[in-house]
Amino acid sequence: MRAGTCAWNCGRGGSPLRYANAERSMAALRTLRFPSCLAFCRKHVNSITGRSFAKCQARFLSSVTERDGLQVSHNSNTGVVTLSMNKPPVNSLNLEFLQSMHKTLGEIQDDQDCRAVILTSGLTNIFCAGLDITEMYQPDDKRLREFWTSLQDMWIRLYSFPKTTMAAITGHSPAGGALLAMSCDYRVMAENFTIGLNETKLGIVAPTWFIDLYVGILGQRLSELALQTGKLFTSEEALKVGLVDQVVPLNDVIPTVEKELSEWKIPALARGMTKDVLRRIYWRKLQETQDVDTESFVFLIKQEKVQQTLGLYLQSLKNKKK
Amino acid sequence: MRAGTCAWNCGRGGSPLRYANAERSMAALRTLRFPSCLAFCRKHVNSITGRSFAKCQARFLSSVTERDGLQVSHNSNTGVVTLSMNKPPVNSLNLEFLQSMHKTLGEIQDDQDCRAVILTSGLTNIFCAGLDITEMYQPDDKRLREFWTSLQDMWIRLYSFPKTTMAAITGHSPAGGALLAMSCDYRVMAENFTIGLNETKLGIVAPTWFIDLYVGILGQRLSELALQTGKLFTSEEALKVGLVDQVVPLNDVIPTVEKELSEWKIPALARGMTKDVLRRIYWRKLQETQDVDTESFVFLIKQEKVQQTLGLYLQSLKNKKK
Amino acid sequence: MRAGTCAWNCGRGGSPLRYANAERSMAALRTLRFPSCLAFCRKHVNSITGRSFAKCQARFLSSVTERDGLQVSHNSNTGVVTLSMNKPPVNSLNLEFLQSMHKTLGEIQDDQDCRAVILTSGLTNIFCAGLDITEMYQPDDKRLREFWTSLQDMWIRLYSFPKTTMAAITGHSPAGGALLAMSCDYRVMAENFTIGLNETKLGIVAPTWFIDLYVGILGQRLSELALQTGKLFTSEEALKVGLVDQVVPLNDVIPTVEKELSEWKIPALARGMTKDVLRRIYWRKLQETQDVDTESFVFLIKQEKVQQTLGLYLQSLKNKKK
Repeated sequence: MRAGTCAWNCGRGGSPLRYANAERSMAALRTLRFPSCLAFCRKHVNSITGRSFAKCQARFLSSVTERDGLQVSHNSNTGVVTLSMNKPPVNSLNLEFLQSMHKTLGEIQDDQDCRAVILTSGLTNIFCAGLDITEMYQPDDKRLREFWTSLQDMWIRLYSFPKTTMAAITGHSPAGGALLAMSCDYRVMAENFTIGLNETKLGIVAPTWFIDLYVGILGQRLSELALQTGKLFTSEEALKVGLVDQVVPLNDVIPTVEKELSEWKIPALARGMTKDVLRRIYWRKLQETQDVDTESFVFLIKQEKVQQTLGLYLQSLKNKKK
Repeated sequence: MRAGTCAWNCGRGGSPLRYANAERSMAALRTLRFPSCLAFCRKHVNSITGRSFAKCQARFLSSVTERDGLQVSHNSNTGVVTLSMNKPPVNSLNLEFLQSMHKTLGEIQDDQDCRAVILTSGLTNIFCAGLDITEMYQPDDKRLREFWTSLQDMWIRLYSFPKTTMAAITGHSPAGGALLAMSCDYRVMAENFTIGLNETKLGIVAPTWFIDLYVGILGQRLSELALQTGKLFTSEEALKVGLVDQVVPLNDVIPTVEKELSEWKIPALARGMTKDVLRRIYWRKLQETQDVDTESFVFLIKQEKVQQTLGLYLQSLKNKKK
Repeated sequence: MRAGTCAWNCGRGGSPLRYANAERSMAALRTLRFPSCLAFCRKHVNSITGRSFAKCQARFLSSVTERDGLQVSHNSNTGVVTLSMNKPPVNSLNLEFLQSMHKTLGEIQDDQDCRAVILTSGLTNIFCAGLDITEMYQPDDKRLREFWTSLQDMWIRLYSFPKTTMAAITGHSPAGGALLAMSCDYRVMAENFTIGLNETKLGIVAPTWFIDLYVGILGQRLSELALQTGKLFTSEEALKVGLVDQVVPLNDVIPTVEKELSEWKIPALARGMTKDVLRRIYWRKLQETQDVDTESFVFLIKQEKVQQTLGLYLQSLKNKKK
């Protein structure tokens, strides 16, 4: 294997595994899970295993920064970063917010003093409302493609994140919000909210990679039912089908996540590589078909019937506000 | 993308997606789920979304036709077609009945006044007994292949059906009967019957596509157990493992299905495309290996041991009747 | 199809299926399940269906042999072979023991008087402790590769075993021990023990094929949780998530397995071929990437951090003994 190539995200263009037969390599990568740990760069090993404790202490103990709708809190004692979405009114994912999340996640990934991330919301009653509908209604072609690519890039980074990620779901979490939660390693949800891929209700189709995650959690049959009918699960239903791992009162969500994190005392490199084996097949699939996925999305959004449904939905939101 | 090509069934020979690299396209289609909605023809969009209501009213309100063992009832008020299998004694699937189902499903698919299909049985105590054993015992080579191809064609049409399909399982549903039920979007079963892929008990092997459906519903481990032992699940067991979605008293089966259908008020195009993303991988796989699947079946059936077991089974059925 | 080629294990180098297009064949074999029963040799059919009863009786009624840590008991009345691991202190899998298991399983496979195998342990409190850590700590390069290849070969044979296999789990079953149990067709476990893939706890990564089995049983989401945290399930938890099929008091384990076996009265050829359809995709995947899998393992084991963790673990074992 070539020194310096990396089997992790950063090696997109690289050749992570040396085969006698390159064609066979590609085919193998496309089927089932595949040994991924043959080669990875020092940068990625560090992003999992982190700096020695002595070096950590050399840094300031804790810090909070806020930028572009994201609040980032470092706790140097625990090595945990809390990433709080703070974009009123409902943390909807538009182009700029997605780019901001992508960039911030990248910085956290490179932070060797961070061992885990809590993803949560700074707003009341909402975790994340999903994709910003105004990006899809009567869109500008260029921006629409940029918007979708940003979503893809952000998701690939979050889903393949080498450190531990936990979602503290402190409010409703439909569509793209559910995607964010499902992409974490563990999910704690507050009582009396809803979560699920309800795209069909808006007249649109959940992307195949949203659907793959759903099937991985709910299985094929329950996914068929829930996706076709656009079902939103209550917190309690979500717990029952495995969409979330714990349901607790609102005020207990963050403490519960922190307690769970304190119990994940596992050699970091082994944990990160195990996660990679389990998830690589999913994000690699999107990475390899990213342009087709974008064309598919653009084609769907431009359908007259889709635009009509989105228009009616936006109108109903405006009427609510009045 | 080429105008006029169709990513749905009708585009079998077509090129639904334009890629820079055709080889990559085929490989991608063969792995996991894939964005399928890039291109589809007007005919298919119509078969999902249907005609405007005004045009519907121009037609007669409801109708019932009976032909080749199938009763077809249109309810123009609800847009629901009830397809009732009515071939005594047990709705066994022989060549002619499979061809009849394939043809009738095609007509319903093209009917723009139909939004959903209920598949049920007109006979007492039996939903469908599965494949007609007499087609497989001491068979004529040509007819055996034709029989199997008809089953494949009928199943691909039913499983990929763009409209909503619901099974009203009003009796026993072994082997091929279970396949019919599993291929619908929703299953309501009467109490005190049985359902399952019990092929091994007859000395034969369930085709790989039957097995793929089973694994999608039961998971790998339970499928291994149930398929190896040829297990028939009682209605109650079937509900517990997710093989059916509701179990109700016999007389409530049809009303329960109709109530469920009335609650599936979802934009039709989005629902149909979502179903397609979830199911395409399964029926495409059969479509691409249809000839191999047929050869595999013919080879198995001609095994001396298989013929012996089938002969004994047919003899036991004759003895029962006496 | 060519006469004499075999779609079963023995045909590794062969061409089990004849296609017009060889490339398509290979691609199809790599995706989902595939009709595998087109061709198999007489030897394999015999290894499933066995000899006629008359011929069985011509042999001695029962026998027990012991060799290389394995006790093999034939019961000619039932056609059941009990394979008991008997290598103190904990049935750890080192190179020689793996080679012994591989060889013995091969002999049992060819034994036409055997219809089923019970895999159990002759030691108290332990089913199998998994891979021998001393094979991985400060290893000799050549032996390390040989060790890993032996594990791969043994597993492929056990997992694709044409006869029925049942695990009688009479003690703890971590890591490689869980792999052995999961590879059988049915699992009965004694109360108050633990089972699971806990590799991350030792700082190593479960191979992709261990992980594929886990996902087949637990699903993607529960596998992610359990594998990342290196969870060991109690017998009762294992039953709940489907990792084992029954939990009974220790003394009832073997009788329960024997009772279950007596109820598996299914035409042998159909059962064996059904198992093959369900499992072929998994062991074929390893077979096609066996060398890459070995390189991946060797690379991981040689990581400095991994050696450190293994060293600490071995030291802690030594301290326990004192």
